[in-house]
Amino acid sequence: MKVVNLQQKFASFDDVWVPRVVAELNGQMVKLVKLIGEYVWHAHEHADEMFWVISGELTIELRGSSVQLGPGEFFVVPRGVEHRPVAPNLVACVLFEPASVRSTGEVDHEYTIEPEHLERL
Amino acid sequence: MKVVNLQQKFASFDDVWVPRVVAELNGQMVKLVKLIGEYVWHAHEHADEMFWVISGELTIELRGSSVQLGPGEFFVVPRGVEHRPVAPNLVACVLFEPASVRSTGEVDHEYTIEPEHLERL
Repeated sequence: MKVVNLQQKFASFDDVWVPRVVAELNGQMVKLVKLIGEYVWHAHEHADEMFWVISGELTIELRGSSVQLGPGEFFVVPRGVEHRPVAPNLVACVLFEPASVRSTGEVDHEYTIEPEHLERL
Repeated sequence: MKVVNLQQKFASFDDVWVPRVVAELNGQMVKLVKLIGEYVWHAHEHADEMFWVISGELTIELRGSSVQLGPGEFFVVPRGVEHRPVAPNLVACVLFEPASVRSTGEVDHEYTIEPEHLERL
């Protein structure tokens, strides 16, 4: 049981596309991630995924549409929906998703991180 | 599928201790609530509950201890742990918890809101 200060946690790492776990509750994980550039198209067949932007401007591309998120805005990508985060400049983002989620869904990619390899902050 | 802007959503209501649902994912709900004063002691036997402070200063009293939360800080009250939120001044707070949660746990109180009576924003 500890208080999590988001600013302090975000200041503790610099690499991008590598989510860190800061809390677990009800089988879900709260993760912090920094993003820049284009991620890989993927979907999570059995998991809804929440993107909450803390700083920066994030585009979440969907097939045929996209959403734009700024600080203090969030979006839930429903399970099964293909998506690709794109960030022209650095974004700090909170993710909320089931503990079992694989970062790139069924896709194998250099960005893939298996759930059991996630770092805790 | 919609972008949720927290500032806009918080500006849309004024009453306190009445959580509003702004998103659902994986059987969990994301709720916004404004708090002031003292809530009622209670626990959620089967649900961990996350308090994420957006503005103001929130104390979460636990039996024998307490935690202090300011903007950009969050805390997870584990299932079964008795707690009481206390806010000397107005607090805007985001809650993450299972969709089935009753606001005051097993306690009946004027603040009690049944899950089926939650308002959506």
